[in-house]
Amino acid sequence: MKSAALDDLIAYLSRLPGIGERTATRLAFHLLRTQPSYREGLARTLQKLSDIVFCKSCRTVSDRAVCLICESHVRNHQQICVIEKASDLYAIERLNIYRGTYFVLHGLLSPMDGITPDDLALDQLEKRLEDHRVDELILALNPTIEGDVTSSYLVRQFSKEGRSISRLASGLPVGSQLEYADQMTLGKAFEGRLTIR
Amino acid sequence: MKSAALDDLIAYLSRLPGIGERTATRLAFHLLRTQPSYREGLARTLQKLSDIVFCKSCRTVSDRAVCLICESHVRNHQQICVIEKASDLYAIERLNIYRGTYFVLHGLLSPMDGITPDDLALDQLEKRLEDHRVDELILALNPTIEGDVTSSYLVRQFSKEGRSISRLASGLPVGSQLEYADQMTLGKAFEGRLTIR
Repeated sequence: MKSAALDDLIAYLSRLPGIGERTATRLAFHLLRTQPSYREGLARTLQKLSDIVFCKSCRTVSDRAVCLICESHVRNHQQICVIEKASDLYAIERLNIYRGTYFVLHGLLSPMDGITPDDLALDQLEKRLEDHRVDELILALNPTIEGDVTSSYLVRQFSKEGRSISRLASGLPVGSQLEYADQMTLGKAFEGRLTIR
Repeated sequence: MKSAALDDLIAYLSRLPGIGERTATRLAFHLLRTQPSYREGLARTLQKLSDIVFCKSCRTVSDRAVCLICESHVRNHQQICVIEKASDLYAIERLNIYRGTYFVLHGLLSPMDGITPDDLALDQLEKRLEDHRVDELILALNPTIEGDVTSSYLVRQFSKEGRSISRLASGLPVGSQLEYADQMTLGKAFEGRLTIR
């Protein structure tokens, strides 16, 4: 209406999740004030996203056929952390406490939605478990019904003498108030209570 | 760390106001799932921002030397709404109730920050007031100290026989609770009370 370029940008930004028209307008005006080099860089990275592929080994997003984590010599390849989606890998890597490798399911078992074990490339996971003689499998799936069903399935499928399989702990979020926790969470926290001494 | 393209995008997005690393990651993964055509379009509009200029007449952002509002024959050129910044124009246009024209100050008087009348291109505003025989000047500036100082200055400067000058109303935001309003706002609402009958 006022500037076609700005209007278009606002329209594009409004389609991002969690960004309404007002936030899009604010962002567009901010972008207008930024250095042209910043905008060029942002535009370039957006275009580069089309080159992203899934790592042949762990199925995470990658610039190359095999991702840097799967190629790394300092990562522990006997340890695989199973996650639902590539963004979960980012969340765990940010913690900087895990030095093993990953496997991305790109989904969770959900008979209702027609998602079966075949859809999660579990044959590929099995091959890695054998090829790398994996001795620790960490199931880092969401504490939801689908996550629990998938975890249980993976435990049944991949249990083996000499291989430990663990799940992430469920319980009260750090900094939360016990009295406001939902029953399920409080129940899980109770069940999973740790002995102090 | 995992994909240079994605990492770069996250870094760029994190620099936007109100977007932290986690939101940037979420947005980046969303963008990865969007159609390439969407990303291309967004990239293109970002690059087009460099072509945006300020309208010679009202100083808002525009693709051309004179913006569509200033060129329009259906807008009332005897009416000028003075605003601080171009994004305020977007906010007012969204209301769809104003059919006059605008003038963007690109700032407010602030002796502390060294912003004087000369910085606000008031000579240009004065020229427009005379050239178009403007009979209504609406001061739509923020209800802050700088906004009030600037409004008062503009009233002194541009008062003229046969020209009405108004300010936006200050008062309780619609849907707010009187008891939670701050004193200043409640005071303004009281002072500006409207007679019903």
